[in-house]
Amino acid sequence: MRKENRVTRCIGWIVVVAALFFLGFIVGWFAKPAHPDTVNSSASSNYLREFLGEMQPDLIRQHLRKFTQLPHLAGTEQNLKYAEQVKAEWQEFGLDSVEMVPYDVLLSYPNSSQPNYISIVDELGNEVFNTSLAEPVPKGYENVPNIVPPYSAFSATGQPEGELVYVNYGRTEDFFQLEREIGINATGKIVIVRYGKIFRGNKVKNAILAGAKGIIMFSDPADYWATGVQPYPDGWNLPGGGAQRGNVLNLNGAGDPLTPGYPAKEYTHRLKLEDGVGLPKIPVHPIGFHDAVQLLKNMGGPNPPDNWKGALNISYRIGPGFADNFKNQTVRMNIHVNNQVTRIYNVIGRIRGALEPDRYVILGGHRDAWVFGGIDPMSGAAVVHEIVRSAGKLLSKGWRPRRTIIFASWDAEEFGLQGSTEWAEENSRVLQERAVAYINADSAIEGMYTLRVDCTPSLHTLVYDITKQIASPEEGEKGVSLYESWHKRDNWTGDRDAPRINKLGSGSDFEAYFIRLGITAGRSRYTKNQKTERYSSYPVYHSVYETYEVVEKFYDPSFRRLHAVAQVRAGLIFQLADSQLLPLDANQYADSLTKYAESIAKVAQKNPDEMKMYKVSFDSLFSAVKNFTVASWDFHERLKTLNRADSLQVRAMNDQLMYLERAFIDPLGLPGRPFYRHVIFAPSSHNKYAGESFPGIFDALFDIKNSAAPEKSWEEVKRQISIAAFTVQAAAMTLTPPA
Amino acid sequence: MRKENRVTRCIGWIVVVAALFFLGFIVGWFAKPAHPDTVNSSASSNYLREFLGEMQPDLIRQHLRKFTQLPHLAGTEQNLKYAEQVKAEWQEFGLDSVEMVPYDVLLSYPNSSQPNYISIVDELGNEVFNTSLAEPVPKGYENVPNIVPPYSAFSATGQPEGELVYVNYGRTEDFFQLEREIGINATGKIVIVRYGKIFRGNKVKNAILAGAKGIIMFSDPADYWATGVQPYPDGWNLPGGGAQRGNVLNLNGAGDPLTPGYPAKEYTHRLKLEDGVGLPKIPVHPIGFHDAVQLLKNMGGPNPPDNWKGALNISYRIGPGFADNFKNQTVRMNIHVNNQVTRIYNVIGRIRGALEPDRYVILGGHRDAWVFGGIDPMSGAAVVHEIVRSAGKLLSKGWRPRRTIIFASWDAEEFGLQGSTEWAEENSRVLQERAVAYINADSAIEGMYTLRVDCTPSLHTLVYDITKQIASPEEGEKGVSLYESWHKRDNWTGDRDAPRINKLGSGSDFEAYFIRLGITAGRSRYTKNQKTERYSSYPVYHSVYETYEVVEKFYDPSFRRLHAVAQVRAGLIFQLADSQLLPLDANQYADSLTKYAESIAKVAQKNPDEMKMYKVSFDSLFSAVKNFTVASWDFHERLKTLNRADSLQVRAMNDQLMYLERAFIDPLGLPGRPFYRHVIFAPSSHNKYAGESFPGIFDALFDIKNSAAPEKSWEEVKRQISIAAFTVQAAAMTLTPPA
Repeated sequence: MRKENRVTRCIGWIVVVAALFFLGFIVGWFAKPAHPDTVNSSASSNYLREFLGEMQPDLIRQHLRKFTQLPHLAGTEQNLKYAEQVKAEWQEFGLDSVEMVPYDVLLSYPNSSQPNYISIVDELGNEVFNTSLAEPVPKGYENVPNIVPPYSAFSATGQPEGELVYVNYGRTEDFFQLEREIGINATGKIVIVRYGKIFRGNKVKNAILAGAKGIIMFSDPADYWATGVQPYPDGWNLPGGGAQRGNVLNLNGAGDPLTPGYPAKEYTHRLKLEDGVGLPKIPVHPIGFHDAVQLLKNMGGPNPPDNWKGALNISYRIGPGFADNFKNQTVRMNIHVNNQVTRIYNVIGRIRGALEPDRYVILGGHRDAWVFGGIDPMSGAAVVHEIVRSAGKLLSKGWRPRRTIIFASWDAEEFGLQGSTEWAEENSRVLQERAVAYINADSAIEGMYTLRVDCTPSLHTLVYDITKQIASPEEGEKGVSLYESWHKRDNWTGDRDAPRINKLGSGSDFEAYFIRLGITAGRSRYTKNQKTERYSSYPVYHSVYETYEVVEKFYDPSFRRLHAVAQVRAGLIFQLADSQLLPLDANQYADSLTKYAESIAKVAQKNPDEMKMYKVSFDSLFSAVKNFTVASWDFHERLKTLNRADSLQVRAMNDQLMYLERAFIDPLGLPGRPFYRHVIFAPSSHNKYAGESFPGIFDALFDIKNSAAPEKSWEEVKRQISIAAFTVQAAAMTLTPPA
Repeated sequence: MRKENRVTRCIGWIVVVAALFFLGFIVGWFAKPAHPDTVNSSASSNYLREFLGEMQPDLIRQHLRKFTQLPHLAGTEQNLKYAEQVKAEWQEFGLDSVEMVPYDVLLSYPNSSQPNYISIVDELGNEVFNTSLAEPVPKGYENVPNIVPPYSAFSATGQPEGELVYVNYGRTEDFFQLEREIGINATGKIVIVRYGKIFRGNKVKNAILAGAKGIIMFSDPADYWATGVQPYPDGWNLPGGGAQRGNVLNLNGAGDPLTPGYPAKEYTHRLKLEDGVGLPKIPVHPIGFHDAVQLLKNMGGPNPPDNWKGALNISYRIGPGFADNFKNQTVRMNIHVNNQVTRIYNVIGRIRGALEPDRYVILGGHRDAWVFGGIDPMSGAAVVHEIVRSAGKLLSKGWRPRRTIIFASWDAEEFGLQGSTEWAEENSRVLQERAVAYINADSAIEGMYTLRVDCTPSLHTLVYDITKQIASPEEGEKGVSLYESWHKRDNWTGDRDAPRINKLGSGSDFEAYFIRLGITAGRSRYTKNQKTERYSSYPVYHSVYETYEVVEKFYDPSFRRLHAVAQVRAGLIFQLADSQLLPLDANQYADSLTKYAESIAKVAQKNPDEMKMYKVSFDSLFSAVKNFTVASWDFHERLKTLNRADSLQVRAMNDQLMYLERAFIDPLGLPGRPFYRHVIFAPSSHNKYAGESFPGIFDALFDIKNSAAPEKSWEEVKRQISIAAFTVQAAAMTLTPPA
């Protein structure tokens, strides 16, 4: 009995010990996280709130003030000094690394000993009128050195002399009208066109195609003057003595004209100057409207169509040449521009990602300015500066994003997006493999009305999400979100009940990232009321009057608008870098593709007879878009049931999202434009069609009514339908389960 | 006291319970694996052993027998039937999925009502000699239908008549010698050249450039006859009535000539036939040496240089035309070839990867044959079939590879690598993002001597590893590994003490994967003794005598050589698909690049004066190679300390290895050849330089002594040095730590 007792007791003990051990084992087993990648998403959203809260309007003001004291044209000492300052401050803010990345690219400056001007010359050869050599310098800046006078960068050097012909905006359709309807040939003439509507480089290209031997561009008050606003410094309109600088290249995304496709390093082979990409072969020069009046007022020839008339008090006669008493006068351009290989500097800062250091989210904007860059680009650069400072602050509190964030201060954007393009070329392999998104940060403000966002469709949802977490900067909108304020002012009516988001165009540093490499991209800024304010960009654009004061006095005295833009840009990169699942929405891409396919088919259907005759059908494109839609819907369904604790599965689905944009890249590029490779969003070669769907690849379709060989053009349209259908189909394939 | 006792006891109990629980907890915590990705590498190597052990020589024999019964030219019903059979058997073997993937591509067949032949025509217009219309059919195959007679696929149709000119192998240097040294112009002539040394398409291109109006190619015993071997069926030499079929395109990687860059689907836009890529504009025809003797024996003109003389008992006079009594005779080609868009079928089978289904290892080889395909390609296809069977067996035992394996049976390789290229085009986005490696599986045997491997440098180490685990198939080498057997027969003397591995050239289905997309690639087969056996490829190549029997009787009666090749190919894909860390060796790439840079600089230094005059320097290339070497060394050092339990870190480093080959792709392609994009390994446009370092991009350098404009050529050389340096530098960047 005692023995039995002992045995029972012993067994009891063993059972208890085993049970306790087992209990402990079970608890230990389940207490241990299966993956270190189990994500604390509430910590992440707390940090987002801290990040957005950290940024301060007054610091943006200070950054802007600091970096707009002196002119800092690309390639000048001052722009290098600012680069060094940016680098030093980013380091101080706490980035993991900051480096200067130089390139030697072709820049273009006026010849300091032979100033550029345009003359009216009388029959004796006397210059009876000369345009001004510089803009009147704004008060307070009188003693500032190195203000470059207005000029057209990369203009040919020369002194063409001849009769003027006025060609409105210098668009393709303006030259067509000139030649076909008005019956005037621009060959051998000097054309004068007003700025606006299209990129100035295209005006120059059109003038060259029309046979002109020189081209003058002027800012007409109809295009650079807001109603009821005083000229600077009493308001933000362009004074009559102000003129718009700018490059006149036709690069089509090539970057440095001498090293297309490769980074402009010391060892890089350079094309000869005469073979450089996109360099115009005729002299070009920009003037203000005071000077323009002198050139235009005595012109002869027919009266122009009504829509060719600007707001100057003259009749806008077309020419060629002058009328009546002035018949024997001609116009001479005196243009001396030096193209020279010059060193430029990007500043690249990095925050190393904690879990996926090999995934990059890039925030990049340029630093170089034509003069002070009060708006372009320093309003944007000041915003980036404040974002970097706030990110550094977050780092010091223990935050580290899941993915790597790269901040870039690009150089020589004004000379053809050169700094950003050369860096993209140098890093093309790693960017193609690792870049999650590129957010562009050019000018952060161009108006006082509401937010403007241009981005790829897969970012739409994130943009709406973020703007709902940001306060409206407008007076009297306390408690109203930026989303609501924006929605109220710019509803995407007809399309959907949400704030309007635009397609990404071209002309800023995102080009190489988005249009060449196919990296998800977007940009944001504060803008004017597009419905009522009809002037181009903003009046003082690229003039000496783009000062700190134009922002501080007129555009954003409280700096709350820039602050809101800073929060949008910061919120985008934060979520892209820190969310466990990439916040990209393939369904939005599907929606957009559906609209685009319908819209491009509608353009074609304006020619029902030819459609029949040449057997043109969009069926393959519609079918591909349908497949894409199904694939993206299925993809997002699968995302819902994804085991988020399985880091390989999460990575694989994120890769599908990351590479979605890449799938729209055609490695062969667009016809004749090897660096424009995005089938959905590459720009048209005529910027008239910039807003169209599939603008780049459907040039042949847009041009069809002017085509000299319609059969060939329709054949090309059919070819492009097939390429578009294949590309959308290929993109759909990237969203299906991988095996 | 009693109370105290109870308290003490109670505390004691609590301590014991807590201790036991804690012990359990600790054991539970550590017992649980931190990652499901913790790899059982001994299980993997057991499976590798089982995989290699599963394959059986006799089954390879049966597969070969089964698929060589009937002619199965691309686009014919029989080749579709074999495709269906392959699909059915792969499904039976246990693959996760098998599909047929059709394309509609341009193929080329003789016109059945107008047979192709070449005549000697007398002064009266009588055809006094006609070449044979077909090869004598081998015994046992007399009643087999659909044996296509020898022809040149994609030849132009036409009946050119004129004088013959003999131009040796039809190489660039042969035509140079003809024109410059011998003083004979081939313009308006019919040239006759012997097969061998270079790709037949290049012979045709050279003839066209020389102005010829037709070209005849013949198999000379000097090039298709092994000493001491009987002609088939008594041995494996080419009978005098045999001739070599083959396509005569110059595609440069374009795939289907009508849809370059895009998959040939129903909806794809097709070029017009006259715009098709690489189609020759003159008639072309192949003949055997019995017929060749008749054409050559009466030729007049000068005696040829000694190295122009083949092994026929004639004097190999150069012409033009016939001698003496035959002066008035001419030669007429009667060629009718139909190019037609035809449906072809790839068979694609898959094993889904367990952990990384979005990483692809591809084993692909073609199925279409000119006639029976006894060697080309079915010796390779039979091997793939046995590999698929064995992989299925492994699956049934519970194995599943870490990554996805894709098996491909390509169609229309013989017509310009069309099946493989179209599939690469259709899947280019996912392949670019996900493909780890492509192993090619064309003919598995071309000789009876030893192993031959051509592969990219990063596979060298894996190839050596695998061959050490395989037994030599040679008689009397029991217990000797394939590595040792191979090493003994083909030592890489001078370079290193290891078996020789060749560069990947061109001309088989790996082209689109390796040269266009930059996917790690390799191939293996059994080969002849390259030092002593000087004939081209193997004698019966592309003739009707490529039967099952030629393998079974002569090349591999025991089927142990094919078995060894099967084990090599299987071992490669197994290790690439199943190793936790990719078995790729960047240090081997660094070694090779170092050698290549030295070798290309040596070629240039043959022109020391011009090097000085045009300031040509290879410093940038050497410097880039040095950076690459440091980066790869550092990379492999980091690999040693990698935490293998961290699946994100493992994935990131594997991605660096996977994308290394991709980094050598220049998106702009080589000058004039947009689909040849691999800077290190793209083929030269003259296959004379196929074995050179950087053969593709340094065409200008190889041609320098024949250049009409040396300054321009040297400028191009400098440009290419800069591109090579940049590319190697970019590749080095992909190996550095990502952030």
